[in-house]
Amino acid sequence: MLNVGLLGAGRIAGVHATAISSHPGSKLVAVSDINTAAAEKLATQYRAEARTTEAVLNDPAIDAVLIATSTDTHSDLIERATAAGKAVLCEKPVDLSLARALECRKAAAATKRPVMIGFNRRFDPNFAALKTAADRGEIGKTELLSITSFDPAPPPVAYIKVSGGLFRDMMIHDFDMANFIMGAAPMAVTAVGSSIVDPEIGAAGDVDTAVVTLTYDDGRIAVIKNSRRAVYGYDQRLELLGSQGLLQAQNMLENTVVKSTTSGVTGAKPTYFFLERYMPAYAAEWAGFVEAVNGGKAVPVTLDDGIAALAMAEAATVSAKTGAPVKLASVLG
Amino acid sequence: MLNVGLLGAGRIAGVHATAISSHPGSKLVAVSDINTAAAEKLATQYRAEARTTEAVLNDPAIDAVLIATSTDTHSDLIERATAAGKAVLCEKPVDLSLARALECRKAAAATKRPVMIGFNRRFDPNFAALKTAADRGEIGKTELLSITSFDPAPPPVAYIKVSGGLFRDMMIHDFDMANFIMGAAPMAVTAVGSSIVDPEIGAAGDVDTAVVTLTYDDGRIAVIKNSRRAVYGYDQRLELLGSQGLLQAQNMLENTVVKSTTSGVTGAKPTYFFLERYMPAYAAEWAGFVEAVNGGKAVPVTLDDGIAALAMAEAATVSAKTGAPVKLASVLG
Amino acid sequence: MLNVGLLGAGRIAGVHATAISSHPGSKLVAVSDINTAAAEKLATQYRAEARTTEAVLNDPAIDAVLIATSTDTHSDLIERATAAGKAVLCEKPVDLSLARALECRKAAAATKRPVMIGFNRRFDPNFAALKTAADRGEIGKTELLSITSFDPAPPPVAYIKVSGGLFRDMMIHDFDMANFIMGAAPMAVTAVGSSIVDPEIGAAGDVDTAVVTLTYDDGRIAVIKNSRRAVYGYDQRLELLGSQGLLQAQNMLENTVVKSTTSGVTGAKPTYFFLERYMPAYAAEWAGFVEAVNGGKAVPVTLDDGIAALAMAEAATVSAKTGAPVKLASVLG
Amino acid sequence: MLNVGLLGAGRIAGVHATAISSHPGSKLVAVSDINTAAAEKLATQYRAEARTTEAVLNDPAIDAVLIATSTDTHSDLIERATAAGKAVLCEKPVDLSLARALECRKAAAATKRPVMIGFNRRFDPNFAALKTAADRGEIGKTELLSITSFDPAPPPVAYIKVSGGLFRDMMIHDFDMANFIMGAAPMAVTAVGSSIVDPEIGAAGDVDTAVVTLTYDDGRIAVIKNSRRAVYGYDQRLELLGSQGLLQAQNMLENTVVKSTTSGVTGAKPTYFFLERYMPAYAAEWAGFVEAVNGGKAVPVTLDDGIAALAMAEAATVSAKTGAPVKLASVLG
Repeated sequence: MLNVGLLGAGRIAGVHATAISSHPGSKLVAVSDINTAAAEKLATQYRAEARTTEAVLNDPAIDAVLIATSTDTHSDLIERATAAGKAVLCEKPVDLSLARALECRKAAAATKRPVMIGFNRRFDPNFAALKTAADRGEIGKTELLSITSFDPAPPPVAYIKVSGGLFRDMMIHDFDMANFIMGAAPMAVTAVGSSIVDPEIGAAGDVDTAVVTLTYDDGRIAVIKNSRRAVYGYDQRLELLGSQGLLQAQNMLENTVVKSTTSGVTGAKPTYFFLERYMPAYAAEWAGFVEAVNGGKAVPVTLDDGIAALAMAEAATVSAKTGAPVKLASVLG
Repeated sequence: MLNVGLLGAGRIAGVHATAISSHPGSKLVAVSDINTAAAEKLATQYRAEARTTEAVLNDPAIDAVLIATSTDTHSDLIERATAAGKAVLCEKPVDLSLARALECRKAAAATKRPVMIGFNRRFDPNFAALKTAADRGEIGKTELLSITSFDPAPPPVAYIKVSGGLFRDMMIHDFDMANFIMGAAPMAVTAVGSSIVDPEIGAAGDVDTAVVTLTYDDGRIAVIKNSRRAVYGYDQRLELLGSQGLLQAQNMLENTVVKSTTSGVTGAKPTYFFLERYMPAYAAEWAGFVEAVNGGKAVPVTLDDGIAALAMAEAATVSAKTGAPVKLASVLG
Repeated sequence: MLNVGLLGAGRIAGVHATAISSHPGSKLVAVSDINTAAAEKLATQYRAEARTTEAVLNDPAIDAVLIATSTDTHSDLIERATAAGKAVLCEKPVDLSLARALECRKAAAATKRPVMIGFNRRFDPNFAALKTAADRGEIGKTELLSITSFDPAPPPVAYIKVSGGLFRDMMIHDFDMANFIMGAAPMAVTAVGSSIVDPEIGAAGDVDTAVVTLTYDDGRIAVIKNSRRAVYGYDQRLELLGSQGLLQAQNMLENTVVKSTTSGVTGAKPTYFFLERYMPAYAAEWAGFVEAVNGGKAVPVTLDDGIAALAMAEAATVSAKTGAPVKLASVLG
Repeated sequence: MLNVGLLGAGRIAGVHATAISSHPGSKLVAVSDINTAAAEKLATQYRAEARTTEAVLNDPAIDAVLIATSTDTHSDLIERATAAGKAVLCEKPVDLSLARALECRKAAAATKRPVMIGFNRRFDPNFAALKTAADRGEIGKTELLSITSFDPAPPPVAYIKVSGGLFRDMMIHDFDMANFIMGAAPMAVTAVGSSIVDPEIGAAGDVDTAVVTLTYDDGRIAVIKNSRRAVYGYDQRLELLGSQGLLQAQNMLENTVVKSTTSGVTGAKPTYFFLERYMPAYAAEWAGFVEAVNGGKAVPVTLDDGIAALAMAEAATVSAKTGAPVKLASVLG
């Protein structure tokens, strides 16, 4: 039984609390949050205790912590938790600063404790099935990957301002997805972006629509499309062309009802947002963490994976400004 | 080169005129119609001559006739044309009277001339592909067939009154389709019907919505659903369950455009009616006739096929009134 | 908080135990089963007590019982539980004998306790969405319903022999679905069936493939297709034609991955069987029961609904033998 | 009646001959080709005369010429034909050299004769329906366009060597499609490409897989994906994201049959190549030309459109080498 402390009590922490409690091999012991009322509420709901972060980290009975606090605390908490001997599952991104994330990796590596980064989409059953099919060689040698990733609606501009920008905040999931599917990091990143959805996002120095091209040293290519707005729902699709075929992972729909009228043939929309679409993925992610920690195996998404995605976001941010491709090696220094 | 006389100059005759003229192995020589203006017009359009039916049948240079006149003339014209030595392709049904159709078969058989009945749907590329897959054993042994066949809108009640009723006029296509797919005629026919689309159809003694179940001596079952109205277009689908899988032939759509909005995900409607859906089938039907006649081979849809479908329509008409199953043998006498 | 006793500890009881435990308004208190080891195991898993059925029914602290025992015990247990003042959710069917079920209804009615029958499919999100759309008039006046319901593989012949036959054991779900969607019981039932999947099923006096036609006093028609075997998975679909369109509820698929190769374009199979397909429906069913009982409202699926479906199964069983339509009124006596 | 001379007698000329002959407002009068046997054959088939190009251009009875010769002759023939007073429909591209194409435009403009470029895909019913829906504002303001355009198999390397490269030979269709859908030329072009399908294509100095990003001065973005090989058939799709939804034009399939087995649910492949997919588009293209010329209206695809696409191909060719974005203005000089 893995005894778990949950750092953070916001919306995504609630999702993780459900996953931790529902898993037969883990138990939610404690919850901490700077908002103590929120911590109390979540703890009560799952029959756990509300504590300070310090108390969670100092409790030798706690085996693992799940970090679901704000991004600016991730690196610190990873360092403190691993130093305290805990296994860690930390929400993405590792940090907004690549330099800080690299320091964090160094510190965490010294403790030899497992650190997993919460790229939950790898655990989506559809994307996982596509990956499995590709790895089995069902479409031969892979050549060209396309990722479509549109949010249903943009977040408030206040959030945009502290988010680190679209590439670090939103596309980072797609960078990790590219690394997952392609099984390698790209050589270079070329980005274009604009603020066509909402000019205020542009005024805040960010983009809301972007296309990024990734090139690999073996000649493969990947392209990622992001938009902060798809009014029809959360649009999350993959296409992978190979020498012997094409694999596509399509959207999950709200239901399977189809209506034919004089206006056409209408089916349901995609599920609305990440909570609807990726709820099973959060459970599978947690199961993967528990299995790795209990079994003494490597976690399925490493801190290195978190840093690779962050470096790509950094490269894309630069490329979107200069127009020129940015080599990943140059960003990683 | 097959020289062809076309009997009839209505809408469906126009479809056949195109097929005859476009085929490299046939030539439209003459057109006849009781409406001589219509015959003139169609003949001019296809560089053929307008003639009387008698003149067409007496012309030794004419090898084949296509009968696309009103149903009540079919038997007579098949008899006259075969007696005149012509190969015949006659629109369905052979006759509204099964007894008359049986006489016609006898007369035609005596001439040994090929007579093909125009069950064009056998030549639809989708249904033909389903049949081929089933015959190749792709779903093992066949067990249960479902035919969905809905017209976009009911015909005028005046037409209904002389049509012979839904089973002879509309479902006869589906009876032939069942015979085509199952490769055998059923043992018994059970029908239910009602006039729920338009009470005037009921007042005229007909039904507009019907379900017919066919049972086969080897235990297989088929079910046919008909409605005179599907406002979204011509709904023409097959489903065949077998011991190793299911085959479905779905509708042809107007185009492949799909629109996702807050209202759902909307694609195009099925093509509107038989002219849109089955135009390629009419050309393939004609090609099949030409190939058989020129090659001295059996025509792909025989007068026997026409009589089998007619007998099923007769049985269904009786069953819809009594509620009881009607054995096909009892109808064929 | 609704305190619940679970009668039965087999596979389906386990599904209900999860639903009861996961619902915030109900608590699993006790489990009984003639197999006491099974009861112990299930009780332990959900932190409940294993007891005798008598002890469960006699415990005043228990508000409701869920009956998930073998079919032959349903009527007795409904009578005993309602007599003991419990609210009841009983798995379908009420009984294999319509006469016994009618007695049970009388006894239960006298207690005025709520009795709900477990027709879980009404709670499937897809079928429920179709029903809602139809009730909102999105396709106008309803005319023709089709239900496709194929199991992935036939049960053992030993089970078939005690099952009451396909119409009572399998199609009963579809009879209830027809009643749910059409909002009325049919006037007459016409059935055909055969044992083409497995001759041993026929030797045991049952059919494995059947088509049933239902006619309604307002002219509407429904058709139900059942097969004990669809090797590609659990095939559960509805189609409802109305004066202004068609509604279809299609299968749930294992995932959304589509592969295009030289062999064609291949997507995932339907989810395998009822546990995969209807798991969310069991949770929604339980929520509906809890809401009704706690709120003093009518349960969403009544004992009358259970009896209506059973009467249709009875009628179909007779019709499949005689070939003739059977009036529902004649069965209900 | 438009009297037409056809320059060229190869495969695509045959497609055009059918379109010209089938159109009620045009007549194929003469065919020329350096391969006189091919010209004779094609002329005979369509009851036209085989002539020299000179004889075609000098015949005052010929109103229009269709240029379907090899690319290196296009500019010359456009100049000669317009100088001879003919209306011209010329296959794409105008020329492999942008400079030469600009000269040609100058010469042709002086004659004031209509010159249409054969970007047939604009006339595909699916793409045309998407364009119409977008222009009607069905998805609000357009933001992000994606074009997927994969050939089933690469051409011989010998062809690659004289083709002008993937961007001029293959993607030029997609550049025009972007211009058609977006209603504007882009500001800049960024390209990446590699020869991962066939290293011999790389050895010949070309790429076989490429992604091009187009940026527009109003912030919109388009992305084009090309591969010389999609073993499952001709993959031709569009996706257009707007402020109020998404439009997709999907592939045409060989038929509508779907097979469900233990291996999954398999539908037909996309139609194989451009002749299968775009045959209706060639007919519609010709109809558009005839209507414009006879009606004295502007042709639907102008020589300027041909030059815009060629300039984008030029820009992409440069960008694929340098990695940097290329402004379209810099290419047009």
